[in-house]
Amino acid sequence: MKPPIEFWFDFISPFGYLASLRIDALAARHGRTVDWRPLLLGVTVLKVMGLPPVPKTPLKGAYAARQIERYLRRHAITLGRDPGAPPMNPLPAGRLYAWLRVHQPARAKAAAQAIFHAHWAQGLPMDDAAALRGVVMASGVPAEVVDAGLADPEAAALLRAEVDAAIAAGAFGSPFVIADGEPFFRVDNLELLEAWLERVGW
Amino acid sequence: MKPPIEFWFDFISPFGYLASLRIDALAARHGRTVDWRPLLLGVTVLKVMGLPPVPKTPLKGAYAARQIERYLRRHAITLGRDPGAPPMNPLPAGRLYAWLRVHQPARAKAAAQAIFHAHWAQGLPMDDAAALRGVVMASGVPAEVVDAGLADPEAAALLRAEVDAAIAAGAFGSPFVIADGEPFFRVDNLELLEAWLERVGW
Repeated sequence: MKPPIEFWFDFISPFGYLASLRIDALAARHGRTVDWRPLLLGVTVLKVMGLPPVPKTPLKGAYAARQIERYLRRHAITLGRDPGAPPMNPLPAGRLYAWLRVHQPARAKAAAQAIFHAHWAQGLPMDDAAALRGVVMASGVPAEVVDAGLADPEAAALLRAEVDAAIAAGAFGSPFVIADGEPFFRVDNLELLEAWLERVGW
Repeated sequence: MKPPIEFWFDFISPFGYLASLRIDALAARHGRTVDWRPLLLGVTVLKVMGLPPVPKTPLKGAYAARQIERYLRRHAITLGRDPGAPPMNPLPAGRLYAWLRVHQPARAKAAAQAIFHAHWAQGLPMDDAAALRGVVMASGVPAEVVDAGLADPEAAALLRAEVDAAIAAGAFGSPFVIADGEPFFRVDNLELLEAWLERVGW
Protein backbone atom coordinates (compact mmCIF):
# COMPACT_ATOMS: atom_id res chain seq x y z
CA MET A 1 0.00 0.00 0.00
CA LYS A 2 1.53 3.27 -1.11
CA PRO A 3 1.38 6.29 1.17
CA PRO A 4 -1.31 8.92 0.56
CA ILE A 5 -0.76 11.67 -1.96
CA GLU A 6 -0.27 15.00 -0.17
CA PHE A 7 -2.68 17.72 -1.26
CA TRP A 8 -1.54 21.09 0.12
CA PHE A 9 -3.99 23.97 0.01
CA ASP A 10 -5.10 27.27 1.54
CA PHE A 11 -8.82 27.94 1.87
CA ILE A 12 -8.05 31.47 0.66
CA SER A 13 -7.11 30.16 -2.78
CA PRO A 14 -9.63 29.70 -5.61
CA PHE A 15 -7.19 27.42 -7.44
CA GLY A 16 -6.95 25.33 -4.27
CA TYR A 17 -10.74 25.03 -4.25
CA LEU A 18 -10.82 24.01 -7.91
CA ALA A 19 -8.20 21.32 -7.33
CA SER A 20 -10.05 20.12 -4.23
CA LEU A 21 -12.98 19.18 -6.46
CA ARG A 22 -10.85 16.73 -8.45
CA ILE A 23 -7.96 15.46 -6.38
CA ASP A 24 -9.65 12.55 -4.58
CA ALA A 25 -11.23 11.10 -7.73
CA LEU A 26 -7.96 11.52 -9.62
CA ALA A 27 -6.03 9.69 -6.92
CA ALA A 28 -8.67 6.98 -6.61
CA ARG A 29 -8.34 6.17 -10.33
CA HIS A 30 -4.81 5.08 -9.46
CA GLY A 31 -5.67 3.30 -6.24
CA ARG A 32 -4.36 6.13 -4.12
CA THR A 33 -5.74 8.09 -1.20
CA VAL A 34 -5.18 11.75 -0.43
CA ASP A 35 -4.04 13.50 2.74
CA TRP A 36 -5.38 17.07 2.71
CA ARG A 37 -2.82 19.35 4.35
CA PRO A 38 -3.27 23.04 5.12
CA LEU A 39 -0.71 25.73 4.43
CA LEU A 40 -0.82 29.52 4.48
CA LEU A 41 0.12 31.45 1.35
CA GLY A 42 0.68 34.44 3.62
CA VAL A 43 3.63 32.56 5.09
CA THR A 44 4.97 30.56 2.14
CA VAL A 45 4.56 33.07 -0.68
CA LEU A 46 4.66 36.40 1.14
CA LYS A 47 7.18 35.70 3.91
CA VAL A 48 9.38 32.80 2.79
CA MET A 49 9.44 33.51 -0.95
CA GLY A 50 9.18 37.28 -0.51
CA LEU A 51 6.62 37.67 -3.30
CA PRO A 52 3.51 39.84 -3.46
CA PRO A 53 0.09 38.16 -3.68
CA VAL A 54 -0.58 37.06 -7.27
CA PRO A 55 -3.67 39.30 -7.67
CA LYS A 56 -1.48 42.31 -6.84
CA THR A 57 1.38 41.33 -9.17
CA PRO A 58 1.40 43.36 -12.41
CA LEU A 59 0.56 41.28 -15.52
CA LYS A 60 0.37 38.04 -13.52
CA GLY A 61 -2.72 39.18 -11.63
CA ALA A 62 -4.61 39.76 -14.86
CA TYR A 63 -3.38 36.45 -16.26
CA ALA A 64 -4.47 34.54 -13.15
CA ALA A 65 -7.92 36.13 -13.30
CA ARG A 66 -8.25 35.04 -16.90
CA GLN A 67 -7.02 31.54 -16.07
CA ILE A 68 -9.74 31.19 -13.46
CA GLU A 69 -12.46 32.35 -15.86
CA ARG A 70 -11.22 29.94 -18.52
CA TYR A 71 -11.04 27.05 -16.08
CA LEU A 72 -14.55 27.75 -14.79
CA ARG A 73 -15.96 27.81 -18.34
CA ARG A 74 -14.17 24.62 -19.32
CA HIS A 75 -15.20 22.70 -16.22
CA ALA A 76 -18.68 24.24 -16.02
CA ILE A 77 -18.16 25.54 -12.49
CA THR A 78 -19.77 28.66 -11.05
CA LEU A 79 -18.21 30.50 -8.13
CA GLY A 80 -20.33 32.19 -5.51
CA ARG A 81 -17.59 34.67 -4.77
CA ASP A 82 -15.54 37.02 -6.97
CA PRO A 83 -11.99 35.62 -6.92
CA GLY A 84 -10.78 39.21 -7.35
CA ALA A 85 -12.48 40.37 -4.14
CA PRO A 86 -10.34 41.01 -1.05
CA PRO A 87 -9.46 37.62 0.44
CA MET A 88 -10.85 36.35 3.70
CA ASN A 89 -8.68 35.81 6.75
CA PRO A 90 -7.71 32.14 6.31
CA LEU A 91 -6.61 31.55 9.91
CA PRO A 92 -9.89 30.46 11.57
CA ALA A 93 -10.68 27.84 8.92
CA GLY A 94 -7.06 26.75 8.56
CA ARG A 95 -6.62 26.32 12.29
CA LEU A 96 -9.88 24.44 12.73
CA TYR A 97 -9.03 22.13 9.85
CA ALA A 98 -5.51 21.50 11.18
CA TRP A 99 -7.10 20.56 14.51
CA LEU A 100 -9.75 18.30 12.95
CA ARG A 101 -7.14 16.55 10.80
CA VAL A 102 -5.42 15.38 13.98
CA HIS A 103 -8.35 14.94 16.35
CA GLN A 104 -11.12 13.87 13.96
CA PRO A 105 -9.29 12.33 11.00
CA ALA A 106 -12.34 10.46 9.74
CA ARG A 107 -14.40 13.67 9.52
CA ALA A 108 -11.77 16.26 8.68
CA LYS A 109 -11.82 15.99 4.90
CA ALA A 110 -15.58 16.36 4.68
CA ALA A 111 -15.25 19.44 6.86
CA ALA A 112 -12.58 20.90 4.56
CA GLN A 113 -14.73 20.21 1.52
CA ALA A 114 -17.67 21.89 3.24
CA ILE A 115 -15.56 24.96 4.09
CA PHE A 116 -14.28 25.21 0.51
CA HIS A 117 -17.81 24.82 -0.86
CA ALA A 118 -19.33 27.34 1.53
CA HIS A 119 -16.66 29.91 0.77
CA TRP A 120 -16.15 29.50 -2.99
CA ALA A 121 -19.42 28.04 -4.27
CA GLN A 122 -21.76 29.81 -1.86
CA GLY A 123 -19.76 32.92 -1.04
CA LEU A 124 -20.10 32.51 2.73
CA PRO A 125 -17.63 34.26 5.06
CA MET A 126 -15.55 31.41 6.43
CA ASP A 127 -13.55 33.84 8.56
CA ASP A 128 -16.71 34.41 10.59
CA ALA A 129 -16.65 32.03 13.56
CA ALA A 130 -20.41 31.47 13.66
CA ALA A 131 -20.64 30.75 9.93
CA LEU A 132 -17.58 28.49 10.08
CA ARG A 133 -19.05 26.61 13.05
CA GLY A 134 -22.37 26.07 11.27
CA VAL A 135 -20.80 24.82 8.06
CA VAL A 136 -18.46 22.39 9.81
CA MET A 137 -21.32 21.08 11.97
CA ALA A 138 -23.43 20.55 8.85
CA SER A 139 -20.58 18.52 7.35
CA GLY A 140 -20.98 15.95 10.12
CA VAL A 141 -18.73 17.08 12.95
CA PRO A 142 -20.65 17.10 16.28
CA ALA A 143 -21.22 20.57 17.73
CA GLU A 144 -19.22 19.87 20.88
CA VAL A 145 -16.25 18.73 18.79
CA VAL A 146 -16.38 21.83 16.59
CA ASP A 147 -16.51 24.00 19.68
CA ALA A 148 -13.59 22.14 21.24
CA GLY A 149 -11.55 22.71 18.09
CA LEU A 150 -12.47 26.38 17.87
CA ALA A 151 -11.50 26.91 21.51
CA ASP A 152 -8.31 24.85 21.61
CA PRO A 153 -5.14 26.99 21.38
CA GLU A 154 -3.38 23.89 20.06
CA ALA A 155 -5.14 24.51 16.71
CA ALA A 156 -2.88 27.45 15.90
CA ALA A 157 0.21 25.42 16.75
CA LEU A 158 -1.00 22.53 14.60
CA LEU A 159 -1.50 24.86 11.62
CA ARG A 160 1.94 26.41 12.15
CA ALA A 161 3.44 22.92 12.20
CA GLU A 162 1.71 22.10 8.93
CA VAL A 163 3.02 25.27 7.31
CA ASP A 164 6.52 24.40 8.52
CA ALA A 165 6.10 20.88 7.11
CA ALA A 166 4.98 22.33 3.77
CA ILE A 167 8.08 24.52 3.56
CA ALA A 168 10.32 21.62 4.56
CA ALA A 169 8.74 19.51 1.80
CA GLY A 170 9.15 22.32 -0.75
CA ALA A 171 5.41 22.99 -1.02
CA PHE A 172 4.53 26.66 -1.31
CA GLY A 173 1.40 27.15 -3.44
CA SER A 174 -2.24 26.17 -3.51
CA PRO A 175 -2.81 23.62 -4.86
CA PHE A 176 0.52 21.87 -4.39
CA VAL A 177 0.48 18.08 -4.68
CA ILE A 178 3.30 15.78 -3.66
CA ALA A 179 3.07 12.17 -4.82
CA ASP A 180 5.84 9.83 -3.71
CA GLY A 181 8.14 12.82 -3.35
CA GLU A 182 7.31 14.29 -6.78
CA PRO A 183 5.92 17.86 -6.58
CA PHE A 184 3.14 19.27 -8.76
CA PHE A 185 2.19 22.93 -8.40
CA ARG A 186 -0.99 24.50 -9.81
CA VAL A 187 -4.35 23.10 -10.85
CA ASP A 188 -3.04 23.23 -14.45
CA ASN A 189 -0.70 20.40 -13.57
CA LEU A 190 -3.28 17.86 -12.36
CA GLU A 191 -3.16 16.26 -15.81
CA LEU A 192 0.62 15.99 -15.48
CA LEU A 193 0.18 14.47 -12.01
CA GLU A 194 -2.18 11.92 -13.50
CA ALA A 195 0.25 11.07 -16.30
CA TRP A 196 2.94 10.68 -13.66
CA LEU A 197 0.77 8.35 -11.57
CA GLU A 198 0.21 6.30 -14.73
CA ARG A 199 3.91 6.58 -15.57
CA VAL A 200 3.02 7.34 -19.18
CA GLY A 201 6.20 8.25 -21.01
CA TRP A 202 8.40 8.76 -17.93
CA MET B 1 -6.94 32.54 -42.74
CA LYS B 2 -6.47 33.12 -39.03
CA PRO B 3 -3.61 35.30 -37.79
CA PRO B 4 -0.43 33.62 -36.55
CA ILE B 5 -0.19 32.40 -32.98
CA GLU B 6 2.20 34.61 -31.00
CA PHE B 7 5.05 32.74 -29.33
CA TRP B 8 6.86 35.03 -26.88
CA PHE B 9 10.22 33.92 -25.56
CA ASP B 10 13.59 34.97 -24.15
CA PHE B 11 16.70 33.09 -25.31
CA ILE B 12 17.78 33.15 -21.66
CA SER B 13 14.95 30.83 -20.69
CA PRO B 14 15.27 27.04 -20.75
CA PHE B 15 11.49 26.71 -20.67
CA GLY B 16 11.34 29.01 -23.71
CA TYR B 17 13.77 26.70 -25.48
CA LEU B 18 11.73 23.63 -24.61
CA ALA B 19 8.55 25.23 -25.93
CA SER B 20 10.35 26.37 -29.09
CA LEU B 21 10.91 22.71 -29.97
CA ARG B 22 7.14 22.06 -30.08
CA ILE B 23 5.25 25.23 -30.88
CA ASP B 24 5.39 25.15 -34.68
CA ALA B 25 4.33 21.51 -35.00
CA LEU B 26 1.57 22.06 -32.45
CA ALA B 27 0.24 25.05 -34.36
CA ALA B 28 0.54 23.28 -37.72
CA ARG B 29 -1.67 20.44 -36.45
CA HIS B 30 -4.40 23.05 -36.26
CA GLY B 31 -3.59 24.79 -39.51
CA ARG B 32 -1.92 27.68 -37.77
CA THR B 33 1.39 29.46 -38.19
CA VAL B 34 3.54 30.96 -35.43
CA ASP B 35 5.08 34.40 -35.07
CA TRP B 36 8.14 34.12 -32.81
CA ARG B 37 8.41 37.30 -30.74
CA PRO B 38 11.26 38.21 -28.40
CA LEU B 39 10.83 39.63 -24.92
CA LEU B 40 13.20 40.21 -22.02
CA LEU B 41 12.44 38.62 -18.65
CA GLY B 42 14.78 41.19 -17.14
CA VAL B 43 12.20 43.83 -18.11
CA THR B 44 8.88 42.00 -17.74
CA VAL B 45 9.53 39.92 -14.63
CA LEU B 46 12.21 41.93 -12.82
CA LYS B 47 11.17 45.50 -13.63
CA VAL B 48 7.46 45.50 -14.49
CA MET B 49 6.34 42.71 -12.16
CA GLY B 50 8.95 43.48 -9.52
CA LEU B 51 9.81 39.82 -8.96
CA PRO B 52 13.19 38.19 -8.43
CA PRO B 53 14.45 35.70 -11.04
CA VAL B 54 12.79 32.31 -10.50
CA PRO B 55 16.09 30.49 -9.81
CA LYS B 56 16.74 32.92 -6.94
CA THR B 57 13.22 32.67 -5.48
CA PRO B 58 13.12 30.45 -2.37
CA LEU B 59 11.18 27.20 -2.86
CA LYS B 60 10.17 28.13 -6.42
CA GLY B 61 13.76 27.95 -7.68
CA ALA B 62 14.10 24.36 -6.47
CA TYR B 63 10.69 23.48 -7.90
CA ALA B 64 11.56 24.96 -11.31
CA ALA B 65 14.83 23.03 -11.40
CA ARG B 66 12.92 19.85 -10.68
CA GLN B 67 10.32 20.67 -13.33
CA ILE B 68 13.03 21.03 -15.94
CA GLU B 69 14.63 17.71 -15.02
CA ARG B 70 11.25 15.98 -15.15
CA TYR B 71 10.38 17.54 -18.50
CA LEU B 72 13.74 16.56 -19.98
CA ARG B 73 13.29 12.95 -18.83
CA ARG B 74 9.76 12.76 -20.15
CA HIS B 75 10.57 14.26 -23.53
CA ALA B 76 13.99 12.55 -23.85
CA ILE B 77 15.83 15.85 -24.26
CA THR B 78 19.41 16.50 -23.16
CA LEU B 79 20.64 20.01 -22.44
CA GLY B 80 24.19 21.07 -23.20
CA ARG B 81 24.07 23.68 -20.47
CA ASP B 82 23.16 23.54 -16.78
CA PRO B 83 19.91 25.49 -16.46
CA GLY B 84 21.03 26.44 -12.95
CA ALA B 85 24.22 28.12 -14.21
CA PRO B 86 24.40 31.94 -14.29
CA PRO B 87 22.36 33.11 -17.28
CA MET B 88 23.89 34.64 -20.37
CA ASN B 89 23.31 38.25 -21.34
CA PRO B 90 20.24 37.91 -23.60
CA LEU B 91 20.62 41.30 -25.32
CA PRO B 92 22.90 40.47 -28.30
CA ALA B 93 20.79 37.49 -29.43
CA GLY B 94 17.49 39.22 -28.64
CA ARG B 95 18.45 42.36 -30.55
CA LEU B 96 19.73 40.45 -33.56
CA TYR B 97 16.60 38.33 -33.67
CA ALA B 98 14.34 41.39 -33.36
CA TRP B 99 16.21 42.90 -36.31
CA LEU B 100 16.05 39.74 -38.43
CA ARG B 101 12.35 39.34 -37.72
CA VAL B 102 11.74 42.68 -39.43
CA HIS B 103 14.45 42.71 -42.08
CA GLN B 104 14.73 39.00 -42.92
CA PRO B 105 11.36 37.53 -42.02
CA ALA B 106 11.82 34.43 -44.16
CA ARG B 107 15.06 33.52 -42.36
CA ALA B 108 14.46 34.86 -38.86
CA LYS B 109 12.81 31.82 -37.31
CA ALA B 110 15.54 29.43 -38.46
CA ALA B 111 18.04 31.83 -36.93
CA ALA B 112 16.15 31.86 -33.62
CA GLN B 113 15.97 28.06 -33.61
CA ALA B 114 19.71 27.92 -34.28
CA ILE B 115 20.44 30.33 -31.43
CA PHE B 116 18.25 28.33 -29.02
CA HIS B 117 19.89 25.07 -30.13
CA ALA B 118 23.41 26.44 -29.89
CA HIS B 119 22.82 27.83 -26.42
CA TRP B 120 20.70 25.13 -24.79
CA ALA B 121 21.56 21.94 -26.67
CA GLN B 122 25.22 22.69 -27.35
CA GLY B 123 26.05 25.03 -24.48
CA LEU B 124 27.55 27.73 -26.71
CA PRO B 125 27.84 31.30 -25.41
CA MET B 126 25.26 33.17 -27.43
CA ASP B 127 26.21 36.43 -25.72
CA ASP B 128 29.55 36.20 -27.52
CA ALA B 129 29.29 38.21 -30.76
CA ALA B 130 31.57 35.94 -32.78
CA ALA B 131 29.79 32.77 -31.69
CA LEU B 132 26.38 34.36 -32.28
CA ARG B 133 27.48 35.51 -35.74
CA GLY B 134 28.70 32.06 -36.68
CA VAL B 135 25.57 30.29 -35.51
CA VAL B 136 23.22 32.67 -37.30
CA MET B 137 25.26 32.44 -40.50
CA ALA B 138 25.15 28.65 -40.31
CA SER B 139 21.35 28.87 -40.03
CA GLY B 140 21.23 30.40 -43.51
CA VAL B 141 21.50 34.14 -43.04
CA PRO B 142 24.19 35.62 -45.35
CA ALA B 143 27.25 36.96 -43.55
CA GLU B 144 26.74 40.52 -44.73
CA VAL B 145 23.16 40.49 -43.47
CA VAL B 146 24.21 39.16 -40.05
CA ASP B 147 26.87 41.84 -39.84
CA ALA B 148 24.37 44.51 -40.83
CA GLY B 149 22.01 43.36 -38.08
CA LEU B 150 24.77 43.20 -35.47
CA ALA B 151 25.91 46.72 -36.37
CA ASP B 152 22.52 48.40 -36.73
CA PRO B 153 21.53 50.45 -33.66
CA GLU B 154 17.91 49.99 -34.76
CA ALA B 155 18.14 46.40 -33.43
CA ALA B 156 18.02 47.59 -29.82
CA ALA B 157 15.02 49.80 -30.57
CA LEU B 158 13.23 46.93 -32.30
CA LEU B 159 13.77 44.67 -29.28
CA ARG B 160 12.56 47.38 -26.91
CA ALA B 161 9.46 47.79 -29.07
CA GLU B 162 8.81 44.05 -28.89
CA VAL B 163 9.16 44.06 -25.11
CA ASP B 164 6.72 46.97 -24.93
CA ALA B 165 4.33 45.07 -27.20
CA ALA B 166 4.60 42.02 -24.95
CA ILE B 167 3.72 44.05 -21.89
CA ALA B 168 0.83 45.71 -23.72
CA ALA B 169 -0.47 42.28 -24.71
CA GLY B 170 -0.10 40.95 -21.15
CA ALA B 171 2.76 38.60 -22.03
CA PHE B 172 5.45 38.42 -19.36
CA GLY B 173 7.03 34.96 -19.25
CA SER B 174 8.92 32.56 -21.45
CA PRO B 175 7.24 30.77 -23.07
CA PHE B 176 4.07 32.84 -23.31
CA VAL B 177 1.71 32.01 -26.16
CA ILE B 178 -1.20 34.15 -27.29
CA ALA B 179 -3.67 32.54 -29.69
CA ASP B 180 -6.53 34.72 -30.91
CA GLY B 181 -6.16 36.83 -27.79
CA GLU B 182 -6.11 33.88 -25.38
CA PRO B 183 -2.94 33.75 -23.24
CA PHE B 184 -1.06 30.59 -22.24
CA PHE B 185 1.94 30.86 -19.93
CA ARG B 186 4.50 28.10 -19.35
CA VAL B 187 5.53 25.06 -21.33
CA ASP B 188 3.26 23.04 -19.01
CA ASN B 189 0.31 24.69 -20.69
CA LEU B 190 1.04 23.70 -24.28
CA GLU B 191 -1.41 20.82 -23.87
CA LEU B 192 -4.03 23.31 -22.71
CA LEU B 193 -3.24 25.53 -25.69
CA GLU B 194 -3.75 22.55 -27.95
CA ALA B 195 -7.07 21.68 -26.31
CA TRP B 196 -8.08 25.30 -26.75
CA LEU B 197 -7.15 25.27 -30.45
CA GLU B 198 -9.27 22.15 -30.81
CA ARG B 199 -11.97 23.76 -28.68
CA VAL B 200 -12.40 20.52 -26.76
CA GLY B 201 -14.80 21.13 -23.92
CA TRP B 202 -14.75 24.94 -24.08
